[in-house]
Amino acid sequence: MSDTGRTVIRGGLVISPTEEIRADVLVEGERITAVAATGSTAAESWTSGDARVIDATGHYVIPGGIDAHTHMEFPFGGTQSSDTFETGTRAAAWGGTTTIIDFAVQSVGSSLREGLDTWHAKADGVCAVDYAFHTIVSDVTDDTLKEMDALVGEGVTSFKMFMAYPGVFYSDDGKILRAMQRAADTGALTMMHAENGIAIDVLVEQALAAGKTDPRYHGEVRRALLESEATHRAIQLARVAGAPLYVVHVSASEAVAELAQARDMGLNVFGETCPQYLFLSVDNLAEPDFGGAKYVCSTPLRPVEHQAALWRALRTDDLSVVSTDHCPFCFSGQKELGRGNFAKIPNGLPGVENRMDLLHQAVVDGHISRRRWIEIACATPARMFGLHPRKGTIAPGADADIVVYDPQTPHTISAATHHMNVDYSAYEGRRVTGRPRTVLSRGRVVIDDDAYVGSPGHGRYIARSTCDYLI
Amino acid sequence: MSDTGRTVIRGGLVISPTEEIRADVLVEGERITAVAATGSTAAESWTSGDARVIDATGHYVIPGGIDAHTHMEFPFGGTQSSDTFETGTRAAAWGGTTTIIDFAVQSVGSSLREGLDTWHAKADGVCAVDYAFHTIVSDVTDDTLKEMDALVGEGVTSFKMFMAYPGVFYSDDGKILRAMQRAADTGALTMMHAENGIAIDVLVEQALAAGKTDPRYHGEVRRALLESEATHRAIQLARVAGAPLYVVHVSASEAVAELAQARDMGLNVFGETCPQYLFLSVDNLAEPDFGGAKYVCSTPLRPVEHQAALWRALRTDDLSVVSTDHCPFCFSGQKELGRGNFAKIPNGLPGVENRMDLLHQAVVDGHISRRRWIEIACATPARMFGLHPRKGTIAPGADADIVVYDPQTPHTISAATHHMNVDYSAYEGRRVTGRPRTVLSRGRVVIDDDAYVGSPGHGRYIARSTCDYLI
Amino acid sequence: MSDTGRTVIRGGLVISPTEEIRADVLVEGERITAVAATGSTAAESWTSGDARVIDATGHYVIPGGIDAHTHMEFPFGGTQSSDTFETGTRAAAWGGTTTIIDFAVQSVGSSLREGLDTWHAKADGVCAVDYAFHTIVSDVTDDTLKEMDALVGEGVTSFKMFMAYPGVFYSDDGKILRAMQRAADTGALTMMHAENGIAIDVLVEQALAAGKTDPRYHGEVRRALLESEATHRAIQLARVAGAPLYVVHVSASEAVAELAQARDMGLNVFGETCPQYLFLSVDNLAEPDFGGAKYVCSTPLRPVEHQAALWRALRTDDLSVVSTDHCPFCFSGQKELGRGNFAKIPNGLPGVENRMDLLHQAVVDGHISRRRWIEIACATPARMFGLHPRKGTIAPGADADIVVYDPQTPHTISAATHHMNVDYSAYEGRRVTGRPRTVLSRGRVVIDDDAYVGSPGHGRYIARSTCDYLI
Amino acid sequence: MSDTGRTVIRGGLVISPTEEIRADVLVEGERITAVAATGSTAAESWTSGDARVIDATGHYVIPGGIDAHTHMEFPFGGTQSSDTFETGTRAAAWGGTTTIIDFAVQSVGSSLREGLDTWHAKADGVCAVDYAFHTIVSDVTDDTLKEMDALVGEGVTSFKMFMAYPGVFYSDDGKILRAMQRAADTGALTMMHAENGIAIDVLVEQALAAGKTDPRYHGEVRRALLESEATHRAIQLARVAGAPLYVVHVSASEAVAELAQARDMGLNVFGETCPQYLFLSVDNLAEPDFGGAKYVCSTPLRPVEHQAALWRALRTDDLSVVSTDHCPFCFSGQKELGRGNFAKIPNGLPGVENRMDLLHQAVVDGHISRRRWIEIACATPARMFGLHPRKGTIAPGADADIVVYDPQTPHTISAATHHMNVDYSAYEGRRVTGRPRTVLSRGRVVIDDDAYVGSPGHGRYIARSTCDYLI
Repeated sequence: MSDTGRTVIRGGLVISPTEEIRADVLVEGERITAVAATGSTAAESWTSGDARVIDATGHYVIPGGIDAHTHMEFPFGGTQSSDTFETGTRAAAWGGTTTIIDFAVQSVGSSLREGLDTWHAKADGVCAVDYAFHTIVSDVTDDTLKEMDALVGEGVTSFKMFMAYPGVFYSDDGKILRAMQRAADTGALTMMHAENGIAIDVLVEQALAAGKTDPRYHGEVRRALLESEATHRAIQLARVAGAPLYVVHVSASEAVAELAQARDMGLNVFGETCPQYLFLSVDNLAEPDFGGAKYVCSTPLRPVEHQAALWRALRTDDLSVVSTDHCPFCFSGQKELGRGNFAKIPNGLPGVENRMDLLHQAVVDGHISRRRWIEIACATPARMFGLHPRKGTIAPGADADIVVYDPQTPHTISAATHHMNVDYSAYEGRRVTGRPRTVLSRGRVVIDDDAYVGSPGHGRYIARSTCDYLI
Repeated sequence: MSDTGRTVIRGGLVISPTEEIRADVLVEGERITAVAATGSTAAESWTSGDARVIDATGHYVIPGGIDAHTHMEFPFGGTQSSDTFETGTRAAAWGGTTTIIDFAVQSVGSSLREGLDTWHAKADGVCAVDYAFHTIVSDVTDDTLKEMDALVGEGVTSFKMFMAYPGVFYSDDGKILRAMQRAADTGALTMMHAENGIAIDVLVEQALAAGKTDPRYHGEVRRALLESEATHRAIQLARVAGAPLYVVHVSASEAVAELAQARDMGLNVFGETCPQYLFLSVDNLAEPDFGGAKYVCSTPLRPVEHQAALWRALRTDDLSVVSTDHCPFCFSGQKELGRGNFAKIPNGLPGVENRMDLLHQAVVDGHISRRRWIEIACATPARMFGLHPRKGTIAPGADADIVVYDPQTPHTISAATHHMNVDYSAYEGRRVTGRPRTVLSRGRVVIDDDAYVGSPGHGRYIARSTCDYLI
Repeated sequence: MSDTGRTVIRGGLVISPTEEIRADVLVEGERITAVAATGSTAAESWTSGDARVIDATGHYVIPGGIDAHTHMEFPFGGTQSSDTFETGTRAAAWGGTTTIIDFAVQSVGSSLREGLDTWHAKADGVCAVDYAFHTIVSDVTDDTLKEMDALVGEGVTSFKMFMAYPGVFYSDDGKILRAMQRAADTGALTMMHAENGIAIDVLVEQALAAGKTDPRYHGEVRRALLESEATHRAIQLARVAGAPLYVVHVSASEAVAELAQARDMGLNVFGETCPQYLFLSVDNLAEPDFGGAKYVCSTPLRPVEHQAALWRALRTDDLSVVSTDHCPFCFSGQKELGRGNFAKIPNGLPGVENRMDLLHQAVVDGHISRRRWIEIACATPARMFGLHPRKGTIAPGADADIVVYDPQTPHTISAATHHMNVDYSAYEGRRVTGRPRTVLSRGRVVIDDDAYVGSPGHGRYIARSTCDYLI
Repeated sequence: MSDTGRTVIRGGLVISPTEEIRADVLVEGERITAVAATGSTAAESWTSGDARVIDATGHYVIPGGIDAHTHMEFPFGGTQSSDTFETGTRAAAWGGTTTIIDFAVQSVGSSLREGLDTWHAKADGVCAVDYAFHTIVSDVTDDTLKEMDALVGEGVTSFKMFMAYPGVFYSDDGKILRAMQRAADTGALTMMHAENGIAIDVLVEQALAAGKTDPRYHGEVRRALLESEATHRAIQLARVAGAPLYVVHVSASEAVAELAQARDMGLNVFGETCPQYLFLSVDNLAEPDFGGAKYVCSTPLRPVEHQAALWRALRTDDLSVVSTDHCPFCFSGQKELGRGNFAKIPNGLPGVENRMDLLHQAVVDGHISRRRWIEIACATPARMFGLHPRKGTIAPGADADIVVYDPQTPHTISAATHHMNVDYSAYEGRRVTGRPRTVLSRGRVVIDDDAYVGSPGHGRYIARSTCDYLI
C-alpha cells in the first residue's frame, strides 16, 4: 500500500471524547480527509476508485493511542531500560499506540541540547510509530534556562523536573521555581515527579538499617503523604511562578485530593496516572522470592483502596491522562541488582503495549465510558502536549493514526506473547477483552490482524506545539 | 430550498468542544452526512452537482444553540410570559438557537399528562425551530409517580421540582425524595430550583412589613445562603435517592461551592447558570424608578463579585450548561404589577435571543475558550437532556442544525431591534462582537443575513432520550 | 449536717478544665469559699473549729456533673418516660450529676407558659439535686415569640426545636428562622434536633411497606446523610438569623464535619453528643428478639466507625458537650409498643446515672484527658447554658456541688444495681473503672459511700443566665 | 519584703481561661497557697497577722504573662539584637510578662550543648524575671540527635528548626524529619519557622536584580503562599514522623487555613502569632524614608485583610498562643545596614513590653474575651511549653507570678517611655487602655505603680517539662 493511496475504513463506530458515530473514514496519503455517515452517498462515493477498504464492521474506529510518558533506552541505576526505540515503538504499535513522547535527559553538568541530541540519535531511523520528546531538566543554570526557550522552538514544549532522586535528577524548590518561571514565559508545560525525595531518602536509610530490604519496603518508605506533600508544594510553586503544571504518575489518593483542590480553584494543574496504579497494588510488591521487584517503580504502588480514588478522579477529570511511564527492566540481571537492597532495584515497569487494552477493560468493567477511554488515552494527551490537531483525533486534517479496535475478543496478557523486550509482564495472566485489530500510522497499516507489517524508520519525530488547555 | 436537497457549507472553522478544524460540511436533507477537510478531493467533489454552497469563509461553523431552559406562554403571578412559542422560537432562531426545551407545567390537583397536553397544544404547529419538553412536577402523588414513567417513554426525560414558591410549585423534601427515587428508576433527570422558599417567605414578609418594597429588596431577601442551603439539601436528597441532579439557574458563589464539592465526589450532580448572572448584578436591581423590576428573577441577581465564581466554574465544569431561563414579562403592565410590593413582580427575564452572542462575547473577553462556548451552549445541553447525537454537534448523522457565525461584526443589543415579544431588553445598549449570519434548522435555512426566512411549524417536537452523563 | 456548717474536702486532686492541683476545698454553707494547697498553713487552719472533714486522699475532687439534656416524665408515643423527677434526679446523684436541665414542652396549640408551668409542677419539691429547664417550642406563633422573651427573664434561656417528628414537634424552616431571630434578640440559645424528618418519614413508610419492621431498620431509615443535611441547614438558618446554635445528640460523622466547618468559620455553633453514640452502635440495634428496641433513640445509633469521629471531635472541641438525652422507657410494656413496627417504639434510652462513669472510662481508655472529661461533662454545659459561675466549677463563690470521685474501683453497670426507674440498662454488663464516692449538692452530702443520704425537695430550680460562649 | 512573707491580693477580679471570680489571693513565700472568695471568713482571716495587703479593687488579678518567643542578645545579620537579658527581662516585667522563653542557638558545626551553655552565660544572674530556653537546631547530625535527649532532661523540651534562611539556620526536609522523629521519642515539641526559604531566596535575588531594594519588597518576596506551603509541608513531615508541631509567628491567612485543617483532623499541631501581625501590616513596611525597615521581620507583615483571619483563628483556637518574637534592632546603625538592600536589614521587632497591653486592647476592641486574653498570653504558653502548673495560672501551688492589672487607664506606646533598649517603637503613638499596676515575680513585687523595684538576678532559669497538650 502506498502512502499516497486512499483508504476507506468502513462501517465502524467512530469514537471521540464527545461522539460515537457510525461513520466511514477516508484516508488520503498520511491524513484523514473526510468522515461521512456510513451508507451515505458521500461515503459510498469513496470506494468508486482504487481505494483500499478496511472493513470495520463490529469494530471501534479510534485515534491511535498517545503514550505521553515512556523511557526507552533510559539509563537508571547503573543499567538501562531494556526496550530500544525500535523494540519499544514496535510494541507500542502492537498495543494500538501510534505516538510516544519519550524523555531526553539532561545530565548534571551537561546542556539540554546534548541530552536532546543524544535522544534524537537513539530514536532516529528506527521507530515504528511517531515520537516526540520532553526534556528532563536536571541542572537548572542560567544557560539551561536560555536553552529552554530554544527547545520550545524545536517542538520540545514540556520540561520534567524531579522533587525525588536527590543527587541524580533532583532539583530544589529554587531551581524548580526558576525553571517554572521560564517555562511559563514560552507557554511550556512543567512536568513534575512529585515525591519528597529528601525525606524519602531518610526513611530508606532507616529501613535498610533496620534490615528491611525486601521490595515491599519500597512501597512503605515512599509514603503517600510524601507524594501528596510534594504535589501540594509543586502546585504552590507553580502558583508563585504563574506557571501551568502537569503532575506525572499520580498514585496516592491524598495526591489526587491536592489536584482536585487546585483544579476547583481553576488553576492550570493537571494530573496523570498509569495503568499500574489502577490495576496493581502493594500486594504485588509483596510477592515472594523477590518477585515484588517486578513492580518497583516510583511513585510506588499503593494499597488497593487507592484505586477507587484514581478511577473516580479519572471520571471527574481531576486526573486527565493515563500514560504508562513505560520503563522496562528485565527481572533477570536488572531487577536483580536490588536483591538484598530494595533501593538498588531499577525503578520501572513495562506497559506501553498494554495500556490501550487495560483501559478498554476498564470500560468493560464499568470504571469509565468508551468516550472517556479515548479522551484519557488519545485526545487529552494530544492536546496537553501540543500534538493536536495532528494526533489524538479522527477528524479531517488529522494524521491518519487510526486503530480498528476489536472490542469483543478476549486475550491473556503474558510475557510469552508480548512484544516488549523484557522478560516478564506486570500483568502476567490477566485476561482482558478487546484488542487492536488493525493499526494505521500516518495512513500506513503497521499492525494487521496479529501481524506487524510496519518498518523501522517509518516513525518520525514530531515537533510539538504548546499545551492546548491553558486558561 | 428543498428539505431533500444538498447543501455544502464551505471554508469555515468548524468548532466542537474538542476540535477546531477547517472543513466543509455536507448537508443532505435534514441531516449532516459528511465533513471533509476544506480543499480536499472529497470536499471538492460535493459541489459537482446541484448542491447549494454556503460560503463560510472567515466564519465559524457551529452547532445550533440549545437553550435547555425556556418558559414560553408561562402563567406566573397572575399573568403569563409574553413570548408565545411562535414569537419565542423565532427569536431563538435569530439568536442562533435551534432547539429549546420548555417546561410543561403540572398544576396542583391535575395530572402531568394534562400539563403536557396543554403545552403540546401551545407549541404544535407554530414553532420556528425544534423544541422539547421538561415537565414541572407540582403535585407528587402515587398517580404522578406512575405518570413519570410514561412521560419518559414519550421523550420527556427530565422533571423539574421547586424548593421555592410555597403554595405554587413548592414540593417538600419528602415529595422531592419520592420523585427523585422514581426518576432514578427510569434514568430520568431531576432538575431543581434550589432556594429555601419557606425561609425566604419569612424574610419577604418581614421586608414588606418594614416598608422595603423596592425591587432591590427582592435581591436582599433571597439570600445567597438560602440558595446554597437548598443546593446542599437537594444534593443530599439525591444521594439518598440514588438519583442524578441538575440544579437550574445557579447564581451564588456559595451554591457553586456546593456543586464543586459534590462533583469532586464523583456524584451525578450538574449545574446550570444563565447569562443574567454572568453579566448583570444587584446594581441592576437597584435601578431607579422601579427600573429594577426588569431584572427580577429567581434565583435573583447577586452582587457583582459572584460573577467571577460563575465564570471560573464554567471553566472548571462545576457549572456545565448556560441556559437562559427565558421568561419575559413586559415592563409595562406586567412587571408593573409589583409596584409597591416587589413580591408581586412577575419573576423572569427575556434572553433566548441573546445567549449565543453574550457567550461569544465571553470568548472575546477571555472568560472562556471558543470550544468551551460550544460545549456549554450546544453540546452539553444536548447530551445532558438526551438530544445527542441528533443535536448539539456537527457530525455525520446529526440533524443539520447549524449556525454560520460571524465572529467579527459588532452590534448593540436593544429592545428596539430584538425579536422577542417584550418591551425592554435586560442588556439594553450593551455592545457585543459576533452574530449568527446564517442559521439552518434541520437543513433548512431559517435566518439568512438579517432576514428571517423560516416558517411557523417548521420546528418539530423532539422526543428525548435520557441523560448521557450518568456515571 | 447543717447547710450553714463548714466542710473541708482534704487531700484530693482538684480537677478543672485547665488545672489539676493538690488542694483542699473549703465549703461554707451552700458555697465553696476557698481553695488552698494541701498542707499549707491556710488549709490547715480550716479544721481548727467544728468543720467536717471529708478525706479525699487518692480521689479526684471534681465539680458535680451537669446533664444538659434529660427528659423526665416525658410524654412520647402514647406513653411517658419512666423516670419521674424524683427517681431521675436521685439516679443522677448516684451517678455524680448534681444538675440536670430538662425540657418543658409546648404542645401545639398551647403556650410556652403552660408547658413550663406543667414541668415546674412535675419537678417542684421532689428533686434530689438542682434542676433547670429548656423549653421545646412546637408551635411558633406571634404569641409564642413574645413569650420567649419572658421566659428568658425567668431563667429559661434556651429553646429547642425539631427538624424531625412531623406532626408532633416538627417546625418548618420558616418557623425555625423566626424563632432563631427572636432568640438571638435576647441572647437565648436555639437547640436543634437536626434530622430531616420529612424525608425520613418517606423512608419509614417505604421500609414498613417492604416488611422491614425490626428495630434495626430504625437505624437504616434515619440516614446519616439526613442528619448531616439537617445540621447543615440549621447552621445556614442560624447564619441568616444571626443566631447561635446548639445541635443536640450528634451521632453521624458527616454531621460532625458540618459542625467543624462552621466552627472553623468562627460561628457560634456548638455540638453535643451522648454516651450511647460513643459506646453503642447499630450492632446493638440488631440484637435479636426485639432486643434492639432497647437502643431505639433519635438520632439513631450509627455503625461503629462513627465512634472514632465523635471521640476525635470531642478532643478538637468540634463537639463541646456530652449529655445523656436520658429518656427511659421500660422494655416491658413500653418499648414493646413497637413490636412489628419499629416506628412505634418510644424513642429514648436511660443514661443519667451512667454518664460520668462512662466518660471517666473514656479517660482510662485514652480517648480524652481528665481535664477534658470535666470540661465536657461539667464546665462547658454550665457555661453553655448560663449556669456558670454557680455550677460546673470548683472555685470560691461557686455552689458546693462536688463529687469526690474514686478513680480506681471497678464496677459493672447493670439494671440489677442501677437506680434509674427502668427495667434494663443500655450498658448491661459493661465493666468500668471509677465511681462517685461522695456527692455534695449545694454543700449537702447526698451520696456517701454507696448510700443515698439526700432527700426529695433538696434540689431547687435554677434560673439560668444566657450562654457564656457567644463571640 | 521578704520572700518568705505573706501577701494578700485583695478584692480584684481573678481571671483564668475558664473563670472570672471575685477573690483574694494568698501568697506565701514564692507561691500562691490559697484563693478565697472576697469577704469570706477564710479570706478575712488572712490579714490577721503581718501579711502585706495589696489592694486590687477595680483591678484584674491575672497570671504573669509568658512570652514564649524572645531573642535577647541574638546574633543576626552581622549584628545582634539590642536587648540584653537584663534590659529585656526588665522590659518584660514592665509589660506584665514574668517569664520569657528565649532561644539558645546551635551554630553549624557546633553542638547544642555549646549553644545552650552560651545562652545560660548570657542570662545567668542578670534577669529581672524567670526565663527558660528552647534550642535552635541548625545542624542535624547523629551527635545532635543524641544531645536532644540530654537537653530534654535539663528542661529544654522544645527545638526550633528553620525552613527559611538557607546557609544560616536552614534545615532540609530530611534533617527536619530526623529531628522530629527524635523529638517525638522524648515528648519534645518541634517549633518551626515555616517559610520556603529556598524559593524566597530566588525571589529576593530577582527583586534586587530588578532594583527593588526598598523594605516593602521584603513583604512582597516572602509570599504568603510560601508561608502556607511550608506550613503544609511541616505538618506532613510531622505526620510522617509521628511528632507534634508548633508553628511560630504565623502571619498569612493561608497558613492559618493549613493549621485549621490539621487541627480538625485532631493532629498535635499548634500555631502562634504575634502582635505585629495583629496590629501592623504591609502599609507599615511601605513607610517612607526607609521607615519600613523598622517593621522588617520574618514571616513578614501581611496586607491588612489577613488580620481578620488571625483574630478569628485566635477565637477558634486554630492559633493558640500570642508571643512577641521580640528581637529588637535599633533603627540607627542596625536596621540601616539594609539601606539599598532590604535583604540586609536585620529581621526583628521589639515587643516584649507591649504584648499584654496590646492584647488587652484587643479585649477592649472586642476581638477576644478577657478569659481568652489570659489563655493565649499566659495559660496556654505555660502548658504548651511545660511550665504548668508552676506558671500561667492563679492557683494554689503555683508560683506567685501575678499581675494586678488596671483595665481603665489609657496610655500611649512610645519609644520615649518604653523600657526596651531600642531606639524606636513599632507601635509609636498608639493609644491603648490598660496597664500592669503591680507585678509580682515569685512572690516579690518587681513593678509597683510606675516604678521598677526588682533586681537583676532575681529571675531564675526554669527547667521545663514537656508539652501538656499532646493527645
